[in-house]
Amino acid sequence: MNLSQEMDKYRIIIDQELDRILPKGDSPQSKVYEAMRYSIFAGGKRLRPIITLKTSELICGDYKPALSIAAAIEMLHTYSLIHDDLPAMDNDDFRRGKPTNHKVYGDAIAILAGDGLLNLAFETMIDGIENSTEKTNGYIKAIKEVGRASGVYGMIGGQTADILSDNSTLNEQLLLFIHQNKTSALIEASIVAGGLAAGGTDDQIEKLREYGKAIGLSYQIRDDILDRIGDKNKLGKNIGSDEVNNKFTYLTLYGLEKAIEKTKELCDNAISSLSIFNDKNTDFFIDLSHYLTYREN
Amino acid sequence: MNLSQEMDKYRIIIDQELDRILPKGDSPQSKVYEAMRYSIFAGGKRLRPIITLKTSELICGDYKPALSIAAAIEMLHTYSLIHDDLPAMDNDDFRRGKPTNHKVYGDAIAILAGDGLLNLAFETMIDGIENSTEKTNGYIKAIKEVGRASGVYGMIGGQTADILSDNSTLNEQLLLFIHQNKTSALIEASIVAGGLAAGGTDDQIEKLREYGKAIGLSYQIRDDILDRIGDKNKLGKNIGSDEVNNKFTYLTLYGLEKAIEKTKELCDNAISSLSIFNDKNTDFFIDLSHYLTYREN
Repeated sequence: MNLSQEMDKYRIIIDQELDRILPKGDSPQSKVYEAMRYSIFAGGKRLRPIITLKTSELICGDYKPALSIAAAIEMLHTYSLIHDDLPAMDNDDFRRGKPTNHKVYGDAIAILAGDGLLNLAFETMIDGIENSTEKTNGYIKAIKEVGRASGVYGMIGGQTADILSDNSTLNEQLLLFIHQNKTSALIEASIVAGGLAAGGTDDQIEKLREYGKAIGLSYQIRDDILDRIGDKNKLGKNIGSDEVNNKFTYLTLYGLEKAIEKTKELCDNAISSLSIFNDKNTDFFIDLSHYLTYREN
Repeated sequence: MNLSQEMDKYRIIIDQELDRILPKGDSPQSKVYEAMRYSIFAGGKRLRPIITLKTSELICGDYKPALSIAAAIEMLHTYSLIHDDLPAMDNDDFRRGKPTNHKVYGDAIAILAGDGLLNLAFETMIDGIENSTEKTNGYIKAIKEVGRASGVYGMIGGQTADILSDNSTLNEQLLLFIHQNKTSALIEASIVAGGLAAGGTDDQIEKLREYGKAIGLSYQIRDDILDRIGDKNKLGKNIGSDEVNNKFTYLTLYGLEKAIEKTKELCDNAISSLSIFNDKNTDFFIDLSHYLTYREN
């Protein structure tokens, strides 16, 4: 399997679904529609929703039971980026080489566009209930999984801890807390919710969660590694900023060599969790683990 | 019936439910918990969730089917106030005589507390699905009603149109759009969702919607009237600011006398919609219409 081609295929499905769901048209609030679309179609890799669709397919042979969940996860991810980039938060002017939402639309509309995407994500998941007739119980569990991962016990909690922390308060435990909640929680939910929406068994869900936890952490450590040894052109941003800012990262904790070791270990763990599915084709998930561990951007 | 005592009784139920749901405890993100609780327990009248509980009771004799919906509506209302008060939006330092959220916790935590309440509102409604066994269809319709009213097709849309408008662009149509969406939509949803969660029939829901539309608009016009003729001490804020700022309001459109006429008319319309329930006790809803039409704060 060619991972990149496979991801492209599912990215198109996600993009079409997002285009269908996101509001448009002339109305007194059309500026917020425009701002929501700006960030949703700003070139995201769609990693999380692709994982959701592929997990659903792994469990029940079809991605459709998880399509609303996948679209919602991308909206949640995008809203969090819009709010994180605000001057009151990380104050970032560029993302993926484009001006951030508030640089284009102003802070007020950026806040509202974020709120709008967060609200629409839940509306979308709830609308999906009626299409989940055979698997309603699992589908509702999937919504809960995503809701918890994006809320104060997940992503918002992690972001809170992140902005309140600095090098004087950071330690291994807090760094793990921040990453587990700010980044990994939604990646883990992308997998688990895909499995739940597809009607996965408890045993399957447990293994999917193990896989999700491993690749979520590996993804984050790889970020820190790339900031040290990445290629500026491939990354689309400058490297070395963590070192310049004396930022407490996994490299501070483990050093470069051990951090790379750690990602390899996590990759192996992720792949081991897949053994429960050995009657199915798990190539995508194996390749995805490798990609996340060795990715260059 | 004594409306004030009746509202106190249901306010206690709402407050207990909110206290149960809102996160607390020591954790790396406890600052956002604190900020969420600060605004939730800042002295709100709980008008919307009380209406939701009373509507459920009107339809099925019990408020409990709508309790999660009611708590969620108050969280949505509160998050919108936190975000609206931000310097990037209306830049208000005080609300109900207390410093606004960002004045106490800073802009970043205020943004996250708003996001946290918005997310938690949906988590709460979704958690309620499993307690809605007999009336699940109506309950899910209730969640949809609230989600639409709070999102870009409702409250967020109205706030967008509001911050983009000024006296040079405002006209009757746009003023109505802003109020219908920014304020009335969630009030209307408070009633309709209470009825849906309680298993109301289509005819009942239609009449509840009529009632909600009428009191929602009346509520807003009364706000404009109070800014002209209210008592500063009863309102807890200065009056006359609309006139000083030359703000385009219902008084600009109708003049004071006709605006008062209009609220009386809306009050009558609201009460007429209740005739479908003439085998039930609708005293609360009749008294509520009068209260909203003649309220002094």
